[in-house]
Amino acid sequence: VTPTRAEALRLDAEDPFREKRALFALPEGVIYLDGNSLGPPTKAALARLETCAEMEWGEGLIRSWDEAGWIDLPRRCGAKIAPLIGAEPDEVLVCDSVSVNLFKLAAALLADAPGAALVVAEDEFPTDMYIFEGLSRFAGRPLLRPSEGGGAPQGRIEIRSCVHYRSAAIADMKAAEAAAREAGDAVIWDLSHAAGAIAIDVKRAGARFAVGCGYKFLNGGPGAPAFLYVAGDCAGRLAQPISGWMGHAAPFDFAPTYRPAGGVARFAAGTPAILSLAALDAALDVYADVDMAAAERKARALGDLFLARTESLSLPSATPPGVRRGAQVGLRFARGCEVMRALAARGIIGDFRPPDLMRFGFSPLCLSYAEVFDAAGALCDVLATEEWRDPRFAAPRLAR
Amino acid sequence: VTPTRAEALRLDAEDPFREKRALFALPEGVIYLDGNSLGPPTKAALARLETCAEMEWGEGLIRSWDEAGWIDLPRRCGAKIAPLIGAEPDEVLVCDSVSVNLFKLAAALLADAPGAALVVAEDEFPTDMYIFEGLSRFAGRPLLRPSEGGGAPQGRIEIRSCVHYRSAAIADMKAAEAAAREAGDAVIWDLSHAAGAIAIDVKRAGARFAVGCGYKFLNGGPGAPAFLYVAGDCAGRLAQPISGWMGHAAPFDFAPTYRPAGGVARFAAGTPAILSLAALDAALDVYADVDMAAAERKARALGDLFLARTESLSLPSATPPGVRRGAQVGLRFARGCEVMRALAARGIIGDFRPPDLMRFGFSPLCLSYAEVFDAAGALCDVLATEEWRDPRFAAPRLAR
Repeated sequence: VTPTRAEALRLDAEDPFREKRALFALPEGVIYLDGNSLGPPTKAALARLETCAEMEWGEGLIRSWDEAGWIDLPRRCGAKIAPLIGAEPDEVLVCDSVSVNLFKLAAALLADAPGAALVVAEDEFPTDMYIFEGLSRFAGRPLLRPSEGGGAPQGRIEIRSCVHYRSAAIADMKAAEAAAREAGDAVIWDLSHAAGAIAIDVKRAGARFAVGCGYKFLNGGPGAPAFLYVAGDCAGRLAQPISGWMGHAAPFDFAPTYRPAGGVARFAAGTPAILSLAALDAALDVYADVDMAAAERKARALGDLFLARTESLSLPSATPPGVRRGAQVGLRFARGCEVMRALAARGIIGDFRPPDLMRFGFSPLCLSYAEVFDAAGALCDVLATEEWRDPRFAAPRLAR
Repeated sequence: VTPTRAEALRLDAEDPFREKRALFALPEGVIYLDGNSLGPPTKAALARLETCAEMEWGEGLIRSWDEAGWIDLPRRCGAKIAPLIGAEPDEVLVCDSVSVNLFKLAAALLADAPGAALVVAEDEFPTDMYIFEGLSRFAGRPLLRPSEGGGAPQGRIEIRSCVHYRSAAIADMKAAEAAAREAGDAVIWDLSHAAGAIAIDVKRAGARFAVGCGYKFLNGGPGAPAFLYVAGDCAGRLAQPISGWMGHAAPFDFAPTYRPAGGVARFAAGTPAILSLAALDAALDVYADVDMAAAERKARALGDLFLARTESLSLPSATPPGVRRGAQVGLRFARGCEVMRALAARGIIGDFRPPDLMRFGFSPLCLSYAEVFDAAGALCDVLATEEWRDPRFAAPRLAR
């Protein structure tokens, strides 16, 4: 059954998150379907950034490390992310980038099991593959594909996306963890495309290690600091090699030797980028009262609406049939890059991943059903009219 | 001879940088002598941050990676720092923190010389010591003090501050490099307390590797991204282990294997914190027309004025006699923490390093001789009156 705009409007009227949209600063005339690449700002994050810069930096100067609580921001932001992934507040730390955090965590696990192999699938998010490649070479440990067996007497350390960046498939974390525990392996979950988009429960899944991104569905701003989760009973035995002063138990004692802080706090390294952290800190407040199961349901419903309204195009979906899908939809079309540029010219912003993947993200807190209905209609129109063939849509690179 | 305020005012009138002060957003009633810990904002940096957040993030959204040039910021900022340290524009990259950059650079040098030892002095800046300690343990390579010989058939990799954070002593980079080259060793220079404060010429010194801080004399904002310098003829053979996608030769090809970018660009790792980078980018413009030799002369003169005016206190200086001094002065006093808090209550902000070091920084672009004269007078007064004994100045921790 083809959905109607009236139905979309009815769904908006019943949307438990309908009040959230007004908290975001989105431009007029834009339907933003790229929150999976870069979340839009909340008005509170913009205001907080100004306060942080003008008042805390400009007026408070060095005193703000204590007086404005800068020194606690990595832990405070971690505690705000924790409930979104089912962790305890003191099990999540915000610092560095996903790439650096993944390096620290995988290296710490490797140091704890020096005979282990590193494992990454050939279709994982590129930076996850590259980090494992670099660590494997530096540490002199094998890098295997999931299908490759053996060669690692002390088990395997695997990086896996919770939501795949192309297919949007949601991994069965619980089953993967059960298998890993039985084999004595460790899984590091990349929650970049999952946190803030779907309901994650690391405790119920038995997940012990994760990294994730602050600038996608968490709306922390471009290149926002990333997060890192380590289950409380695991952190104490892990020594991460980038042992900078911020991970020291007493950084301002200036002691001659390193003594790691307790728990996940030992995964901090250098001085955190406070301006970027402050924006993330404020952005996370929009999630304070959000039931992530309900948010996931809405994101899924937005995606279903988009797929139903574009079904007549018969474009292959990137999500395998029967698989639970995250807050994005991927449709494949050889000239998808031009199509996405034609849509952008109409104010509808998604993104494109080579060679042929058009991605549409459905941030559950800042999108309405009517917007998604209209965006899907525009996609149908751009393809029906072949508007994308216009030379001004010939296509260069797009960023993550 | 005791200096007079009239002389200070005369020096201000002749100061080649007297127009610079108006470019900074400093609070009324504050004399800020802690630019060596956290530089104050320029008005341009505050304005740029607002534009970056409101317009580039809020309006441009994902498009700003290309359209606002976010993707080029790490290299653009590097090119602005390069002339301040005597490097070529394409030899400096801004990314991550000093701690993470030091790890990347030292690990890359270690991978290039697997038999080498790591060397760090026992009074180096703590995070530099801790990073070498962590890398040494992870890589299974010895960690030596400079005085320790032997045990490293493939040479030594040493981290050294150009300006020491306590003594303010400026290292003889040229002599150290000559000795290192003769021995087949490598020196990584930590320019954190030097860049933007004194004249550095890595080329003339023969220095090949350096890291440095963006938030001290470069005024990039709290926790601003750090920089990394690798001489052009060295970068190509170095493989750093945190090989995230931003250091890939073609990050948006999403290729299955890592191929490092040319030159220093391969030292990038994850997605950069754009809000923090934008502030640094604008802050650096204040240096565009600055002759660093003249800036160093002014910083030295400000420090000399401060020392002359406080000479009667007979406090021991942290700088050894006869040593070239950077843009800060350290005076030792057992109850220095209380003294610094008493000064802060008068609007004069320096910092304190345990156990007894009062540090006063002299940012050459935003301080006047009259301010330094007055600050020194206040120090004399606080000690003469024993104002620091007031219980409200009893003292907790201060941050970097």
